[in-house]
Amino acid sequence: MNWQLPKINWANFFMDTGIIILKLTVIYLIYIIVKKVGFKLIARSFQKLEERKEISLGRSRTLQSLITNIFSYALVFVFIVTVLELFNIKATAVLAGAGVVGLAVGFGAQGLVSDVVTGFFLLLEKQIDVGDYVTTGSFSGIVEAVGLRTTQIRSFDGTLHYIPNRMITTLSNHSRGNMRALVDITIPYEKNIDEAIKILQSACDALAEEEPKIIEGPNVLGVQNLGTSDVVIRVIAKTENMAQWEVERKMRKVLKEALQSLQTEKD
Amino acid sequence: MNWQLPKINWANFFMDTGIIILKLTVIYLIYIIVKKVGFKLIARSFQKLEERKEISLGRSRTLQSLITNIFSYALVFVFIVTVLELFNIKATAVLAGAGVVGLAVGFGAQGLVSDVVTGFFLLLEKQIDVGDYVTTGSFSGIVEAVGLRTTQIRSFDGTLHYIPNRMITTLSNHSRGNMRALVDITIPYEKNIDEAIKILQSACDALAEEEPKIIEGPNVLGVQNLGTSDVVIRVIAKTENMAQWEVERKMRKVLKEALQSLQTEKD
Amino acid sequence: MNWQLPKINWANFFMDTGIIILKLTVIYLIYIIVKKVGFKLIARSFQKLEERKEISLGRSRTLQSLITNIFSYALVFVFIVTVLELFNIKATAVLAGAGVVGLAVGFGAQGLVSDVVTGFFLLLEKQIDVGDYVTTGSFSGIVEAVGLRTTQIRSFDGTLHYIPNRMITTLSNHSRGNMRALVDITIPYEKNIDEAIKILQSACDALAEEEPKIIEGPNVLGVQNLGTSDVVIRVIAKTENMAQWEVERKMRKVLKEALQSLQTEKD
Amino acid sequence: MNWQLPKINWANFFMDTGIIILKLTVIYLIYIIVKKVGFKLIARSFQKLEERKEISLGRSRTLQSLITNIFSYALVFVFIVTVLELFNIKATAVLAGAGVVGLAVGFGAQGLVSDVVTGFFLLLEKQIDVGDYVTTGSFSGIVEAVGLRTTQIRSFDGTLHYIPNRMITTLSNHSRGNMRALVDITIPYEKNIDEAIKILQSACDALAEEEPKIIEGPNVLGVQNLGTSDVVIRVIAKTENMAQWEVERKMRKVLKEALQSLQTEKD
Amino acid sequence: MNWQLPKINWANFFMDTGIIILKLTVIYLIYIIVKKVGFKLIARSFQKLEERKEISLGRSRTLQSLITNIFSYALVFVFIVTVLELFNIKATAVLAGAGVVGLAVGFGAQGLVSDVVTGFFLLLEKQIDVGDYVTTGSFSGIVEAVGLRTTQIRSFDGTLHYIPNRMITTLSNHSRGNMRALVDITIPYEKNIDEAIKILQSACDALAEEEPKIIEGPNVLGVQNLGTSDVVIRVIAKTENMAQWEVERKMRKVLKEALQSLQTEKD
Amino acid sequence: MNWQLPKINWANFFMDTGIIILKLTVIYLIYIIVKKVGFKLIARSFQKLEERKEISLGRSRTLQSLITNIFSYALVFVFIVTVLELFNIKATAVLAGAGVVGLAVGFGAQGLVSDVVTGFFLLLEKQIDVGDYVTTGSFSGIVEAVGLRTTQIRSFDGTLHYIPNRMITTLSNHSRGNMRALVDITIPYEKNIDEAIKILQSACDALAEEEPKIIEGPNVLGVQNLGTSDVVIRVIAKTENMAQWEVERKMRKVLKEALQSLQTEKD
Amino acid sequence: MNWQLPKINWANFFMDTGIIILKLTVIYLIYIIVKKVGFKLIARSFQKLEERKEISLGRSRTLQSLITNIFSYALVFVFIVTVLELFNIKATAVLAGAGVVGLAVGFGAQGLVSDVVTGFFLLLEKQIDVGDYVTTGSFSGIVEAVGLRTTQIRSFDGTLHYIPNRMITTLSNHSRGNMRALVDITIPYEKNIDEAIKILQSACDALAEEEPKIIEGPNVLGVQNLGTSDVVIRVIAKTENMAQWEVERKMRKVLKEALQSLQTEKD
Repeated sequence: MNWQLPKINWANFFMDTGIIILKLTVIYLIYIIVKKVGFKLIARSFQKLEERKEISLGRSRTLQSLITNIFSYALVFVFIVTVLELFNIKATAVLAGAGVVGLAVGFGAQGLVSDVVTGFFLLLEKQIDVGDYVTTGSFSGIVEAVGLRTTQIRSFDGTLHYIPNRMITTLSNHSRGNMRALVDITIPYEKNIDEAIKILQSACDALAEEEPKIIEGPNVLGVQNLGTSDVVIRVIAKTENMAQWEVERKMRKVLKEALQSLQTEKD
Repeated sequence: MNWQLPKINWANFFMDTGIIILKLTVIYLIYIIVKKVGFKLIARSFQKLEERKEISLGRSRTLQSLITNIFSYALVFVFIVTVLELFNIKATAVLAGAGVVGLAVGFGAQGLVSDVVTGFFLLLEKQIDVGDYVTTGSFSGIVEAVGLRTTQIRSFDGTLHYIPNRMITTLSNHSRGNMRALVDITIPYEKNIDEAIKILQSACDALAEEEPKIIEGPNVLGVQNLGTSDVVIRVIAKTENMAQWEVERKMRKVLKEALQSLQTEKD
Repeated sequence: MNWQLPKINWANFFMDTGIIILKLTVIYLIYIIVKKVGFKLIARSFQKLEERKEISLGRSRTLQSLITNIFSYALVFVFIVTVLELFNIKATAVLAGAGVVGLAVGFGAQGLVSDVVTGFFLLLEKQIDVGDYVTTGSFSGIVEAVGLRTTQIRSFDGTLHYIPNRMITTLSNHSRGNMRALVDITIPYEKNIDEAIKILQSACDALAEEEPKIIEGPNVLGVQNLGTSDVVIRVIAKTENMAQWEVERKMRKVLKEALQSLQTEKD
Repeated sequence: MNWQLPKINWANFFMDTGIIILKLTVIYLIYIIVKKVGFKLIARSFQKLEERKEISLGRSRTLQSLITNIFSYALVFVFIVTVLELFNIKATAVLAGAGVVGLAVGFGAQGLVSDVVTGFFLLLEKQIDVGDYVTTGSFSGIVEAVGLRTTQIRSFDGTLHYIPNRMITTLSNHSRGNMRALVDITIPYEKNIDEAIKILQSACDALAEEEPKIIEGPNVLGVQNLGTSDVVIRVIAKTENMAQWEVERKMRKVLKEALQSLQTEKD
Repeated sequence: MNWQLPKINWANFFMDTGIIILKLTVIYLIYIIVKKVGFKLIARSFQKLEERKEISLGRSRTLQSLITNIFSYALVFVFIVTVLELFNIKATAVLAGAGVVGLAVGFGAQGLVSDVVTGFFLLLEKQIDVGDYVTTGSFSGIVEAVGLRTTQIRSFDGTLHYIPNRMITTLSNHSRGNMRALVDITIPYEKNIDEAIKILQSACDALAEEEPKIIEGPNVLGVQNLGTSDVVIRVIAKTENMAQWEVERKMRKVLKEALQSLQTEKD
Repeated sequence: MNWQLPKINWANFFMDTGIIILKLTVIYLIYIIVKKVGFKLIARSFQKLEERKEISLGRSRTLQSLITNIFSYALVFVFIVTVLELFNIKATAVLAGAGVVGLAVGFGAQGLVSDVVTGFFLLLEKQIDVGDYVTTGSFSGIVEAVGLRTTQIRSFDGTLHYIPNRMITTLSNHSRGNMRALVDITIPYEKNIDEAIKILQSACDALAEEEPKIIEGPNVLGVQNLGTSDVVIRVIAKTENMAQWEVERKMRKVLKEALQSLQTEKD
Repeated sequence: MNWQLPKINWANFFMDTGIIILKLTVIYLIYIIVKKVGFKLIARSFQKLEERKEISLGRSRTLQSLITNIFSYALVFVFIVTVLELFNIKATAVLAGAGVVGLAVGFGAQGLVSDVVTGFFLLLEKQIDVGDYVTTGSFSGIVEAVGLRTTQIRSFDGTLHYIPNRMITTLSNHSRGNMRALVDITIPYEKNIDEAIKILQSACDALAEEEPKIIEGPNVLGVQNLGTSDVVIRVIAKTENMAQWEVERKMRKVLKEALQSLQTEKD
């Protein structure tokens, strides 16, 4: 064991450092330019597509957000490989290596591959489009962007959720057809059920005529539950997509007033 | 380390790019045509099959949704491999490689294989048909389509659930035979149980005659629970498939009225 | 990079296609015939077995459902291998290969092997027979069929649950001996416990004589819980298998009436 | 591609089939005989062991159930290997192979090995004996049989639970020493605590003399909880194994009566 | 087997130890100096960047915290490798080895790689910036620092959460646009709904004029729920980011006073 | 395929069987003797150790239970290997093999190794000693024995829990220092807080003098919670290990009486 | 198969055993001496460090506990390897082997490596120091020691939690800055909100002057919740670290008295 400092040729060291910084700057500028140009080209192409109205607006925006996403990932990948080669590190060799590093990378990157595979099928099977109202896991909201790796969902309180695609194991899409409006209304145990149902149904019919968003008139189904002092009556309707909450609110108001008027008459 | 830009033959570059875009367009057109023709052929074949009524409607639609699905996947696979070869990337070589990329792909694709294997057995064992009312995990609804990778279930509120087949670990099919209607009715503690049961049973018998959807008459089983101030009486019936809720609602109404009339007589 | 369409010999293409379709039809017909004949042979063998009453009915039906299942799987496997060979794909070579596909298949098929292994031991250890009332995971019901891969359980509301055998980690069989009927009855805090127990026990004894399904007479165990205003008395009995609910209902009725009569006498 | 049916020598085919069926029958008969003789030998050996009383009854039955189990597994294994060799399938070769099938089997059988290893230690460490009252996971009951792969526990409601040994991660054995009886009794907030404790303790002492199953006399520990209108007093005792519930019930009755008499005296 | 102590050359031993300690001190000093200089350079560069206002403040701070983090990790890595080489342990050889140690390290380091990969995408996809209010898993708060391996979130009660990046499977960012303020207000069942809504709406309009943080005026949506004695009315508004709680508090006060004045007038 | 029974030399067969049984008996006897002698030697050594009081009693018993455990495992291992060699099965060869069996064993034994590794560190880090009161997972109680593979904990109701060491991921040891006694006492909303605190504190001080197990006198911390009709006051103390429950009970009694006397005085 | 006992040279056997025991004793004594000397050196070095006050007390104690821990592990490792070599077992060869044992060890030791890696980053990123009040998983308390493998946390009730570092997936450190004190106070629905807020705020201001531990005066935020008969008002303050509970208690007392005085005045 002997004691000596490694000799460093300081002149060369600063030269090399300077050249590398120069190269880095040039590469970064090219990266910035290519990125801006690419993004504009993509945006313009999709603008034309939308004008021709060949595919639905949601689908076109989904594809645009996806292609922008793929383009920027490819660019970043090329950029990183180039920079690493400046420092004499061959990225592809590292990826192909089978040592401990390779193993760790393989396992670490596993999640990434799952994300891309799941994202690919999400789009291929048209499970999701920008603008859809979806639920996945414990997240609900409007889809803002679909990427190769992540999907962005904005919930109704304004929060933006970033969800890796592999986390989307099951997807519930609420924008794929008409929705149901359901109201449970409680009447006292002593009341005559037939009479109550008749009054509720006529209130429903009146609402159905007024409200164009109702597709299949609210119908009184019957006794849903027998409590010890109450009887629960269920009423359901079919509405246009996304109109279910509004219709439910109107139904609640109308049904409550119908029951109340009945009460008043009797008194 | 020396500083030089890679020389790019710009003439060739634009030539090649042009040819590739041309090829891409041709391939895309062929893809579109084959897809449309294939889909029509499949649809027409199954239409004939349905007319001949050799297999049940649900089964025929299940098979149609499956075969359309397999066909479109095969097409997309061929399309992607062709496009990749345009860019000199051999997809099969990548798949067979055993480096880090291969490993990551293997693990990432694992879910895909599980989906296909599970989907295959779902169909082979006739666990599921288009139109069945099923529950799997926390999702319930009517099956809309069964694919190689995903099953689509529409729940009663109109939401469409996309469920990867591997997520269907256990499947509960509610469309495989007659269903049970069950009503628990509460009577006050002081009431005589024998008398109450007699009245409830006669109301049940009357309902059984009226309602053809009831297969095995509603029967009063007896005391299900002893509360501190109530006695719970259970009544069950067997009904046609999917008629259980309607029958339960009718039973609740009839039983409640029977009990009430009893009350009134006494007073 | 040069630009040419692959030459396709269209005459040969249509010839080959025709021959393949012909072969497919023949293979499919053979498959159908073998399947029907096989199923009938199996059914007839087991019918004879049942007539001779050498093994229990549940066991014989379990074996029949299993053997039918194995037979149809073997047939489908042979059918698929034959069809794949028509298209020059050697299934066994794919299975033996160790590339990415092989790996993915290996992992994907893992669940299948677990299913078969677990199913094998379910039957070997006689844990389950067709007709048993079992609970596994969150599913309860009567076993309808036991297969190599899946077990079918019909719950009491009529739903048919398909459960892959590997999901049956623990199995609770409710058809393996006599069952217990348990009733907790509440008496007011002020009442004398000894007196209450005496009356309840005499009611139990009367019931035991009437009801032949009770194997070990209902016995009053004593004070199970001390509430602030109530005392809970526990009564248990041993009954024939599947008669526990009926006996519990009768016990509830009898015990309640006994307590009530006590009340009345005092007043 | 050419079109010809494989030639089958039908004479040979039926000959071979006949011989195989004959062999199968002989093997099956030997299997049945060896099994019956073996089971009898094992049963008789253990009967002698029990008569000599060298080891505890629970332990001897545990070992008997285990050895019967190992014996029948070994027999089945030999039987299956023999049958497979009739059809020219070498089971050991399949097990040693390292293709996709081997891999899948390896993973599938992993659970089996875990079962055996865990079962081995369950017995070696004497964690469990036939007749013990144990809890594992969500299952409680009396151990009926301990096998190489599965343990059978009968819960108090009569259900028989089959639990693979690897599922027994932690085991709580309630038959390994004296048990504790614990009763919480509520007194009104206004009552004097010292006086209440004195009365409860004297009732406990009286019970301790009467009841031989109590090993360490019930002792009043003191105020366990202060509610807004109640004070909870805790009383604990040590009892013989399995007598804890009976003692608790007696304690509840005695303590309640003691408190009530106090009340009455005051009034 | 023979018995002798290994001979240690004590002179050499102390010499070597002395040299190693000397070397360690020098290396440590260099480490300290490089670290301080590096941190200052990074801090100064970002200060300039912020002054020029080319990128947003949150983004610049995010990048600064990240680069400082990467720099210190690289330094520590170089430091450890150097120290290990003093003791003749080649760290790279250990990492590349494939024995049991290598395997264990590979698995152990797997988490580290996942952290870095996830962290990389968190930043690339701009999911997170220093100063954002985010929720991930069960942690909510303001992002304080984003590192290669860990993200620091300070929750509103002052606690600082250190979260490994791989634990951030889904991220909900509450600082990405306007937020919603939602108030549910309860009115008695007998009250006229139309009148109540009118009064609440006019109170909302008054508030909207006063409060500039409200972007979309609070609107009364209608009947959200029908209780047995109450009717729940829902009011929502859109507010500036982070102003949602303040606006909700004001809305609650204003709506309550509006309802109360109504009450008073009537009396 | 030809039909012949394997020829068995019956004379040799019985001879060999006899010799094997003889050998087995001898080996078993040696095993029994070595075990008994070994156990006695271990017990005697530790008895001496305890007499000399060089290490704490808990630690010495921990080591004794561990060494007895290691010794009996080693013996069983040697015994099994010897027996297997009688039947010409080389256990070491099986363990070293890399076929499907080896793989399955490797995975199956994984849990065993985890147990031993965790157990080793439990003891090395002195996390646990026989006689400690610990909590791990959902199990609490006094440690009865610490083994290489399993730890035995007896809970206060008398149940003995067998916990594989690998299940002890986190361990909470309640026998490592003084404990805290905490009592929350509720006073009516109208009462003056300062006065109540003064009275409670003086009752605490009186208790502190009486009770030697209290190390840091019970102190009244102040208002812990504001209910709508109650105010909760918190009192805490530091006590000797394991005396916390007794002290809490005394505190509850004393505090309640103090509050009550206050009430009475006022009236 | 022939029957002979292995010949053992009993003289040699006892000689060897004696020598081994001698060697063991010597090795053990050296181990004890090195351990004691090492611990003293470490303790003295850190004592000096603390006196010079170059690093914070918490940090210095953290490092001391860590280095003591590393030192004792290294010693134990050397000790075990030496002892194993006495018995001719080469530990390094076992570790490098790739048979079933090696595999099992590799998997078993995986947890150990994860512990060390996580522990390393816990310290490098200064997430934790001895004396910090932290929460991780379901454990909260003051850090007592940070080791290579385990972290010790003492919770406020006196229990000492031993947590393997790999279990510390996320860490919440409550000793990293000022804390928030939060009190929700309920006022009756009929009360005027403005007036109540004014009185509460003035009480807060008075408290802020008195109490130096409050850093940012308690502020009344406004109406947090609208119950059917109550209005909840929220008050928050910023306090010194660890003073949050004390301040909250004082705030509760002061706010309650303020509200009560208001009540009294009116009456």
